[in-house]
Formats: sequence, C-alpha cells, structure tokens
Amino acid sequence: MNNSERRKLLYDIIFGTDTKFGKLFDVILISLILASYLLLMAGSVKAIETKYNQIIIAFEWAFTIIFTVEYLTRIYCSPRPLKYITSFYGIVDLIATMPLYIALLFPSAHYLLIIRLVRVLRIFRILRLNNYLKDSNILLSSINNSKRKILVFFLAMLIFVIVLGTLIYIVEGPKNGFNNLFISVYWAIVTMTTVGYGDLVPHTVLGKGIAAFTMLLGYCTLVVTTGIVSAQFISDAKNRTSSNNIKCPNCGQVDHNEQAIFCFNCGAELPSLKK
Amino acid sequence: MNNSERRKLLYDIIFGTDTKFGKLFDVILISLILASYLLLMAGSVKAIETKYNQIIIAFEWAFTIIFTVEYLTRIYCSPRPLKYITSFYGIVDLIATMPLYIALLFPSAHYLLIIRLVRVLRIFRILRLNNYLKDSNILLSSINNSKRKILVFFLAMLIFVIVLGTLIYIVEGPKNGFNNLFISVYWAIVTMTTVGYGDLVPHTVLGKGIAAFTMLLGYCTLVVTTGIVSAQFISDAKNRTSSNNIKCPNCGQVDHNEQAIFCFNCGAELPSLKK
Amino acid sequence: MNNSERRKLLYDIIFGTDTKFGKLFDVILISLILASYLLLMAGSVKAIETKYNQIIIAFEWAFTIIFTVEYLTRIYCSPRPLKYITSFYGIVDLIATMPLYIALLFPSAHYLLIIRLVRVLRIFRILRLNNYLKDSNILLSSINNSKRKILVFFLAMLIFVIVLGTLIYIVEGPKNGFNNLFISVYWAIVTMTTVGYGDLVPHTVLGKGIAAFTMLLGYCTLVVTTGIVSAQFISDAKNRTSSNNIKCPNCGQVDHNEQAIFCFNCGAELPSLKK
Amino acid sequence: MNNSERRKLLYDIIFGTDTKFGKLFDVILISLILASYLLLMAGSVKAIETKYNQIIIAFEWAFTIIFTVEYLTRIYCSPRPLKYITSFYGIVDLIATMPLYIALLFPSAHYLLIIRLVRVLRIFRILRLNNYLKDSNILLSSINNSKRKILVFFLAMLIFVIVLGTLIYIVEGPKNGFNNLFISVYWAIVTMTTVGYGDLVPHTVLGKGIAAFTMLLGYCTLVVTTGIVSAQFISDAKNRTSSNNIKCPNCGQVDHNEQAIFCFNCGAELPSLKK
Repeated sequence: MNNSERRKLLYDIIFGTDTKFGKLFDVILISLILASYLLLMAGSVKAIETKYNQIIIAFEWAFTIIFTVEYLTRIYCSPRPLKYITSFYGIVDLIATMPLYIALLFPSAHYLLIIRLVRVLRIFRILRLNNYLKDSNILLSSINNSKRKILVFFLAMLIFVIVLGTLIYIVEGPKNGFNNLFISVYWAIVTMTTVGYGDLVPHTVLGKGIAAFTMLLGYCTLVVTTGIVSAQFISDAKNRTSSNNIKCPNCGQVDHNEQAIFCFNCGAELPSLKK
Repeated sequence: MNNSERRKLLYDIIFGTDTKFGKLFDVILISLILASYLLLMAGSVKAIETKYNQIIIAFEWAFTIIFTVEYLTRIYCSPRPLKYITSFYGIVDLIATMPLYIALLFPSAHYLLIIRLVRVLRIFRILRLNNYLKDSNILLSSINNSKRKILVFFLAMLIFVIVLGTLIYIVEGPKNGFNNLFISVYWAIVTMTTVGYGDLVPHTVLGKGIAAFTMLLGYCTLVVTTGIVSAQFISDAKNRTSSNNIKCPNCGQVDHNEQAIFCFNCGAELPSLKK
Repeated sequence: MNNSERRKLLYDIIFGTDTKFGKLFDVILISLILASYLLLMAGSVKAIETKYNQIIIAFEWAFTIIFTVEYLTRIYCSPRPLKYITSFYGIVDLIATMPLYIALLFPSAHYLLIIRLVRVLRIFRILRLNNYLKDSNILLSSINNSKRKILVFFLAMLIFVIVLGTLIYIVEGPKNGFNNLFISVYWAIVTMTTVGYGDLVPHTVLGKGIAAFTMLLGYCTLVVTTGIVSAQFISDAKNRTSSNNIKCPNCGQVDHNEQAIFCFNCGAELPSLKK
Repeated sequence: MNNSERRKLLYDIIFGTDTKFGKLFDVILISLILASYLLLMAGSVKAIETKYNQIIIAFEWAFTIIFTVEYLTRIYCSPRPLKYITSFYGIVDLIATMPLYIALLFPSAHYLLIIRLVRVLRIFRILRLNNYLKDSNILLSSINNSKRKILVFFLAMLIFVIVLGTLIYIVEGPKNGFNNLFISVYWAIVTMTTVGYGDLVPHTVLGKGIAAFTMLLGYCTLVVTTGIVSAQFISDAKNRTSSNNIKCPNCGQVDHNEQAIFCFNCGAELPSLKK
C-alpha cells in the first residue's frame, strides 16, 4: 500500500460514516470524548482528586495525546487540509486538543475541556444523518415562522420582568434580601419561569401580592406561548403534507393525495404535476 | 432653512421611522432609555452607590435633561402640539422626564424612573410595525375568543386557591408558619403554579396530603388550559386561512371554500380569484 | 299588594336574573359572600384579631343574620319550598348560614364559613349563563373523551411516584430526612409536578440521580399529557364545526359548509338534511 | 367435581376476567397488593413500627403466604404451567412472593416488596382491556413517531445541561456549594426542569446570570417540546381517522380518502364500504 492509498484509507475511516470502520471510528471517538468528560467530572470530586490525582493527570494527558494525534491525522489524510483546518469542525477539533497545553500556563484553562463536548455533535453523522437534519430543519423553520409572535411575547416578558423586579425591590428592599435591582430582576425571572428556588422570597403582604401576580403571569405566559408554538407547528406540518392542489378535469374534485394519478371520485386520469 | 422647514425636518427625525435619521433617532432614544435603567440598577447596588454616588447623580441628571429637551422639541416640532401632549405617548414622554424633579421633593419618587421603560414600546415602530401589530392582534383576538373558557377555569382556580388555602390554614395553623389566611392563600398560589418557593411547607401528614392534591390540581390545570388555548389558536388560524374572502355578488354570502366556484347559499357563480 | 303578589315579587328578585332588581340582588349577595370571606381572612391575622375582635364578631353575626333572613325568605317566596330546600343550592344556602351557630358549641366550626364560597357559583347566573355552561360542557366532554388516555398516564404516574418514592427512601433513608414512605412518596409528587419545595432534598449521589430521573419523568409527563389533551380538544372542536357530510349528487363534491344549499363546485342543489 | 374440572374452574377464576368470579378475584388480588404496600408504608413510620411491630410482621407473612399459595395455584391450574412460569406475569408473580423469604437472610431485601406493585398492571385486565391497550398503543406509536424530533431536543438538552453545569461550577465553585461537576450538572437539571429545589443556588452575579439563562432555556424547551408532541399527536389522530382502510383490489394501494370511489393510483373502482 503506497502513501496515497494509505491516506485514502485513513480518510475513509476518519471522515467517512458509510463503511463499517468509519462508523466504528466515530463510535470510539464519541466514547473517548464522553470518557474524557467523565474523567473531568470525577476529577472535580475532592475526595477522588486527592486520592487518584496521579492517575487522573495521566489519563488526561492520554486523552490529549490521542486527540492531538487524531487531529494531525485528519490534517494529514484530508485531501484539502486547509479547508478542513478552517472549517467549523476543524476549529472545534483543534480547540478540543488544546486545554491541557494551555493549562500548563493557566491552570484554570483546564475547564476548557468541556469544549470537547461540542464534538459529540458528530453523533448525528453516525445516526441516519439526513433524517435528523431534516427534523432539525423543520423544527428550526417552525420556530422561525413563529418568531415574530414569540418576540412580541418575549419583549412583553422582558418588560414585565424588569417592572416586577423593580416593584419588588421598592416594596421589599434590602432589609428582606432584595439588595439591588439585579437581584430583584433575577428573582422575577426565577418566579416567572416557575422555578422558585426560594432563596429570595417576599416578606411583606404587598410583596407577596406582587409575587402572586408574577407567578400567575408566568403561568399564563407558559400557556399562551405553548399554544402559539403548537398552532404554528401544526399549521406547518399541515402545509408540508397537504394535497397536491390538482383539480380533477372531469368532475372538479380536489383534495387529491400527493401521489394520486387518478381522481378518487370519478376515476378520470389527473393532469400530471411536473415541477 | 427657515423656521417651518426646520420644524418639518425635526418632525421627520423625531416622529418618523422611514428615513435613516428617523430610525437612528429611535435607536439612540431606546439605547438611552435602557442605559438610564442600567444606571438605576447600578445605583441600587450599595457598593457602587457609595463609591460612585456623584457620577450616578450626574448621569441621572444628564438623562433627565436629555429627555426633557426631547420632550420640549417634540412639542415644538409637532404640527398639532396639543394632540401630541394629550396622546398616550405624549403623557408617557412627560412622565418619563419627571421622576428626578419630583425626587427633589420626595426621594423615593426616584423609582418612578421605571416608567421610562414604557417608552421602549417605541421599538415596535423601528421594526416592521404593521406585522408585529398584526401578530399582536391575532394573539389578542385568539385570547379574546377563548376568554369564556379561560374565565371558567380561572374562577374554578380562584375558588380552589381560596378553599385549599383555608384548608391548609385549618390543618397546619400558625404553629407551622401558616399565620393567617392571606399567607395560606399565597401558599396555595405558590403551590398551584408549581413555583414552590419552599419558604412555607406543610409539616403534618394531612397538610402534606392537601399539598400533594394542590400540586396535582395545578399540574392538571396547566395541561387543560394549555390544551384549550392551543385548540383555540389552531382553530382561529384555520379560519383565517381556509376561506377565500370572496363575497357572493348575488346574495352576499361570505366564508366560501377555497376552491369554491359557485356560492353554496344561492348557487350563483362566484367571481374568479386571479392572483 | 297582597300576600301572593308580594311572594311573586320577592321570588322574581331573589331567584330571577332577568329583571334589574334580580341582577342587583345577586350582585349584592355575591359581594356579601366575598366580604364575609375577607372578614374571615382579616380575622385570621393575629394583630387585627386582637385589636378589632369585637367588631369582627359583630360583623360575622351581621352576615350570619343576613344570610339566615335570606334563606328564610327564599323558603317563604319559593312556590315549592320543599323542592328548594332539598335542591343543591338549597342545601348550600342552609349550610352557609350555620357555621356561626355551630361555632357557639364548637369554636373551630368557624372555618366552615368557607362553604359560603360555594354560593359564589351563582355568579354564572348573572353572566350569560347558557354560554358559560356550554363552554363548561364542551370542556367536560373533551376531558371525558380523553379520559382513558389520561387514566393510562395517571396510573403510570401513580406507580412511578410510589416506586420512585420507595427507591429514594431506601437510598436516602431517615438520616437525610426521608423518615418514612409517606414522606418519600410526597417528595416524589413534589418533584414530579416540578413544584420542588426544597424542604426535602436528596444528599447522596444515588439519591440525586433518582431525583434527576424523577424530574425528567415529570417534565416528559407534562409534555405528553398536554399533547394528548390538546389533540383531543382540537379533534373535538373540529368534529363540532366540520362539514355536513353531504355529497353533491351531480359532481360528487364533498366537504360542504354546514349551511350549504348549493354545491360550491358545480352549483347543483344539494339534497336537504333533515334531522 | 373431578380433578380436571376443578382445575378448569380455578383457571377461569384466576386467569379469566369474563366471569363474575374472575373479575372478583382480580379485584381482591389488586386490593391485597395495595394493602400490602400500605402495610409497608405504615411499617416505615418509626412510631407505628415500634408500637405494632408484631402485628406488621404477622400481616406481612400473611400476605406472603397468600401470594405464595396463589402462585402455586396458578401453576397447578395452568394448562401449560411452564409457559406461565416463564411468561412476564409468571416471573413477576414469582418475584412478588419472594421478598420476605430473602429478607430472612438479607433484612434490606424487605423493600423488594414494591415489586409487587408491578402486579397492579393486572388492573388493565379488569377494565375493558382492549380499549386501554389500544389507547396505550396509540400513545406509544405517537411518541414513537416523534422520537427523532424528541431525540434531537433531548441531545441538545443533555449537552446544555452538561455545559451549563460545568459553567456554573467554574463560576461558583466549591465555596458556594457547587462542590463538584456531578452536583453542578444535577443543579442544571433541577433548574432546567423548573423544579428549583433551592438547596443549591448561585451567589455570584455571573452565576445568577447563568441561572437565569438556564431557566429561560428550560422554559423554552418545555414550550417547544410540548408543541412538537402536540403537533405529532394531532397529525397522527388525523391520519387514523381520514383514510377508509380499503385496499384497492387491483393494485393494492391503501390510504384512500374517506369518500374515495376509485383508486387514486390505478383508477380501478374500490369496493364500497357498507356499515
């Protein structure tokens, strides 16, 4: 096997998803990425970190070396290396190798390791890519279609959060924990989204009244926004699947199936749809 | 440029949204309003307020003077000043200039500054106004259409909140923090909207039973109300898109089917829709 | 005015909702009921109760006497007193007068006053009754139609709540506040409905894992149940408004408007629908 | 009554749901299962356990013996005992008898008693089984149809939870209770699902910003996922009711319109649907 053949083979394995080895490679890669995140998680536990410090560092370097080798191989076997390097995945791949090198200089850079998770997006390549992308696109297009309605609501919600946050600050004030307007607006968000941590609660009667109003507003916003988005999704789904708009030349029947060749009402042949 | 021309130009810039300068003016204005709110937020933080007290006061006066000048200019260049002054935006604009003047007499009037946020509604003028208003109207009309159903549920919810609040007060009582009926009804709202602060929780077995029931009720209300609103939005969307807006020239019947050729009421031929 | 006329007049005022006085009477009655609840609320606040004890008691007796007089008048002017007394509203009206009399013997019976709130249901009589009842009926029928699907989910949820409550009890145990199975199942309900008081939280890693699973399950259940109910409401709304199922005898066109007399496709007269 | 007849009778009672005794048997069985769980609950309360220890143990053994006898009878009267033993219900029934026997060796095995709850699934046999199973199947098939869309969202949510958990860990760190990455990811789940226990809350300004973003993200995810699932349910419901289930006798085409007379694929006349 000469050099060119080797590069072609490596390319099929590393970039391809159709061959058995191509798929296997992606599965292994994603497992390694997840394993490297689990290692990061484990390393964040004080007790584990103290006890297995050496092992964790060793593994982290192992992962870093593997990803570095992988990155260099990708450049090596890519037919147009520069295009790969400057592509979205190319940049993510590069950044994914770097945290530990940077951490030699700045220890906290360590957590840049989570950038590696972005690489998990490759998972869509193993699964039947097109279908997933199609579904994502449908979702995004539906969200896009209802974007104006959502924006109107979002703006209303933003103004409400600011106004209610300011009101609670005036009513409750620093003596009840509402130290400043930032914290008060944060409280309004916590309440409107029905999260309700309870780290900051109103103590006065008027404050409780404002809180009750905020909750009901959040509840209503949830209901109305869900209604808007549902209606949009349904109307979009209908438009995609609806009939072919052909009218039977014999009896005038409409609402024919998309694949219809003959009229379901009179049996006459329908004009074909060329587009 | 004479006086009248200057007023016309100022009018186009300040009130208009079509010209480049008109848009720019609105963008600057909204930025100033938001900046003035951010200043208010910053000023509410003790540490910042102590250190930069002078600067904050200076900026607040700067904003107030800018908004005052803007308000006066609006009156000056408006073709019908009185109509502007008594319009909704005119009153909001006036109030937006006043907090600091009033605060000279009553310091707490300071927070009236949030009224300025109402002016942010002008943002709809920069964006394609009509589309947004149309979407708002569709929303409001849908909400209006389902208002009776919502009212039935809302009344039911109100009665439930009062009854469950009273029950928890009887069961738990002041010794567990449920000091009075106001606080108990407040607890019922916190629980039914699934916010759940946790500042007030039942301690007895029976109280926990009532709480569990309240939660499940809130959960069900959320599901059912969302269903009602979604159904209403979808049915409204369908009605808007399904009829062809043609009026029968013979009998005046509307609401014809999209493919209709003859009026379903009198059988007369409908004018064809070419577009 | 003789006795019989007086009774007729009183009947129209008290039971009727069509005349001006009949409406006014109902509005006053509901105001009195709400005022009597507000009095109960105020009386539950320690500070108010201590200070205005006498006044509160006086008012409570006043309300009781008013409602007693009203109840006796209802019996007096009712054409069939026995039918009224044994009707749903008759029983509610009677119970609404009694709390204070019973409280002479058992002080805690005082809170039976909330039963008066049930009388607020009369509000539907003032508003356009039929429309509201129709909407309620549509709601109830839709809920009824999806009852099997909801029951399947509800049973699943119940089993999940019990199983997850038991699991958290085994994992966390009394040392972390999960004292018994009742409290653990209560915790599971608090978590699944996304209320999340936070009075009882898992402390072990495994417990947090179970909690995370419970939350995601509650989140999914909310999404799916809302979807089921929305779909049911929409399909019901469609069935109510859908076409008349008549097929044009001339061209075979279907999907005619409910009021259609002529076919919208060929203009032929449709067979009339007698039912 | 000979041996074979007795087995037949027992089989009808124990396995059957059509006869009066068969139904009664299932009702009693489910009551016993629930009673055995209530006993487990009661036994978990310290005060009750201390006082009635003997009675609880006696009852638990009584339940165990009843279920053991029932299991043996099922084997005895089953026409094909081996098939029953290896069936799903057979295995569940066996496990349901065992906890107490195992607990003689390992006391904590005691809680395996909750496995008995799985037997409650038999409840579907008493109710009109087929309808419920059909509804379950429709649900499952709808969920199945929207599985790709849900998976896309779920993956996105997973990545968000991990990234936001890591961010909050970096920003807040162990000094504010975010001791490790496991706990931080757990916090992100608690916040995104809008549960919001409040046992772990951000204390820094940046942390609160991340929390606010997490809440809004969770809120949006809820809205969008509900919209997706609703749209799927509605489109599925429509598909089920719109086609007439007739298969073209000429070309085998299905999915014909409800009013179809001719096959839209080959133009052949469809058999008419008389019912």
